[in-house]
Amino acid sequence: MRNLTISLDMMGGDYGPRSTIPAAVAAISQHPQLHLILCGNSALLQSELSKRGVADHPQLTIKHCEQVVNMDEKPAGALRAKKDSSMRVALNLVHSGEAMACVSSGNTGALLAMAHYVLKMLPGIERPALIATLPTNGPRPVYLLDMGANISCSAQVLFQFAVMGSVIAEAVEQLESPRVALLNMGEEAIKGSDQVKQAAQLLSETDKINYVGYIEGSDIFSGKVDVIVCEGFVGNVALKTCEGIAQLIIGKLQSSLNQSILTRLLGFMLMPALKKLYNGVNPDHYNGASLIGLGGIVVKSHGNASDVAFLNAINEAVCEVERQVPAKIKDKLAQY
Amino acid sequence: MRNLTISLDMMGGDYGPRSTIPAAVAAISQHPQLHLILCGNSALLQSELSKRGVADHPQLTIKHCEQVVNMDEKPAGALRAKKDSSMRVALNLVHSGEAMACVSSGNTGALLAMAHYVLKMLPGIERPALIATLPTNGPRPVYLLDMGANISCSAQVLFQFAVMGSVIAEAVEQLESPRVALLNMGEEAIKGSDQVKQAAQLLSETDKINYVGYIEGSDIFSGKVDVIVCEGFVGNVALKTCEGIAQLIIGKLQSSLNQSILTRLLGFMLMPALKKLYNGVNPDHYNGASLIGLGGIVVKSHGNASDVAFLNAINEAVCEVERQVPAKIKDKLAQY
Repeated sequence: MRNLTISLDMMGGDYGPRSTIPAAVAAISQHPQLHLILCGNSALLQSELSKRGVADHPQLTIKHCEQVVNMDEKPAGALRAKKDSSMRVALNLVHSGEAMACVSSGNTGALLAMAHYVLKMLPGIERPALIATLPTNGPRPVYLLDMGANISCSAQVLFQFAVMGSVIAEAVEQLESPRVALLNMGEEAIKGSDQVKQAAQLLSETDKINYVGYIEGSDIFSGKVDVIVCEGFVGNVALKTCEGIAQLIIGKLQSSLNQSILTRLLGFMLMPALKKLYNGVNPDHYNGASLIGLGGIVVKSHGNASDVAFLNAINEAVCEVERQVPAKIKDKLAQY
Repeated sequence: MRNLTISLDMMGGDYGPRSTIPAAVAAISQHPQLHLILCGNSALLQSELSKRGVADHPQLTIKHCEQVVNMDEKPAGALRAKKDSSMRVALNLVHSGEAMACVSSGNTGALLAMAHYVLKMLPGIERPALIATLPTNGPRPVYLLDMGANISCSAQVLFQFAVMGSVIAEAVEQLESPRVALLNMGEEAIKGSDQVKQAAQLLSETDKINYVGYIEGSDIFSGKVDVIVCEGFVGNVALKTCEGIAQLIIGKLQSSLNQSILTRLLGFMLMPALKKLYNGVNPDHYNGASLIGLGGIVVKSHGNASDVAFLNAINEAVCEVERQVPAKIKDKLAQY
């Protein structure tokens, strides 16, 4: 094994090698210590690499896989029938220790099912969660989980998500005791579902998590807290609603800016800031989300990921390997 | 009874008469046919009206109430103990027929409990829903329900919400067959909670609703559909997340604009458009949400409502009286 090896599902997502190949090529030039194992159809991948003049690059190895998991395939079916898929092989390499992390922009449900089956859960964690980083009005981003790995979650599962989110915020943002909140319909103790209320109770009873109470959707970006925990359905809707509203606001703003020559000029000057903002509120599209709670590092890039987005996901995987996130979660859980 | 009579809970919300009095005064000048019954502490209201020179205005009647429902009061407690509250009396006036609609910016949970108890549900509707109008990239707004009247909802309740949303979009937007969608984690049929999947089944089986399938959070504002149905927890988080992200985007944009004298000047020109946008994505704050499915019209203004927001809520109530929304929902339900 080289210094830092990551396996990539080259065939996933809406674009397959069209986005994964340029991302892989960019990643190795950014990280000289990085070695990538490219899982997918070897003839296709070989031809794409040749076109870019990197057919025999020492940082790249092709691992041939016969199958591809389709974007609309049922997770259980993919788990049963796609044992030689690029997704499954990429995960197997993490399990065998040949890779330290894996990145895929394929079918989320299938990736979850396969990752769960191949890598198993960390002790004390019942379900994996997708965690994403969102921008805030404060000096640091906020970590939101679960972004859609699960539909509904028990109070215990929400508690475990709080532990994992806290460990990650601590490791990544170098915070001593990250402020953890539960996403709810209101800040009053009487509001919310039974699971959320029970999770609040569990979190109030431990001194190992800096639980600060409920938070509403309007305060996600306020910078008041470092970690926000919710069930997957709610987190997914919140994240995707951000994307929708950002498109709406920026679209309407652009049409306001197009009204006169002067405002057009302003629009031109504002474009870089607008673009940065737009990417910031599209973390799912732009940076990928980590699948945590597993016995290995898996980064999920958006199905619609561009080469830049897939490269960002590879970079995220590199960071997580360096930070040893699963080992840290394991250590924290051992305290309970 | 005058031509068009509406009862107002004058003591609700964070500001009470400070926002409700100026809104009431503005409303009667906008609508010469409107008569308002102001429910609250008569001495206080009388003094506020006198200050504005409208102490004996023929369009205003004060109805004295001894009690106020506090913003943090438990709904069940308020229902039991606050029978002479401004909120309860305003609802009683709708029930007795003395008012055609009521507006409150008070405690949402208490308003729901009292409205349910006093006005009862329409036949065939199990639970009331909060419905809000959101802007889209298309020519018309989209109706989103439930915005937080309920936490979780059965498939039957989601179906009933779809019927009510469709009736309202038909009545208000003059649409022949509004496109109705269920909010979900993905557009594929295999995704989502059991309730959402069962509601999709129920909606597919009727030809009285133009059910078009699932929609994701990212498409809420796309203008692809006219009505979006979800459970209250999810709708509440989605709506409040919009508010949060709008604050984030507009805040960051303003700091980009503040970087030079030229951009400051241009930013000043852009301000009206920014403000309009901001209000558009804050429908809850700005326009209030209607509580539907009840045997009477109740409009909920935000707890933090300014006088402008409370005036908008009064205007919404005026529109709903004119459109006879509850009668139309009743007629539609009679078809099933």
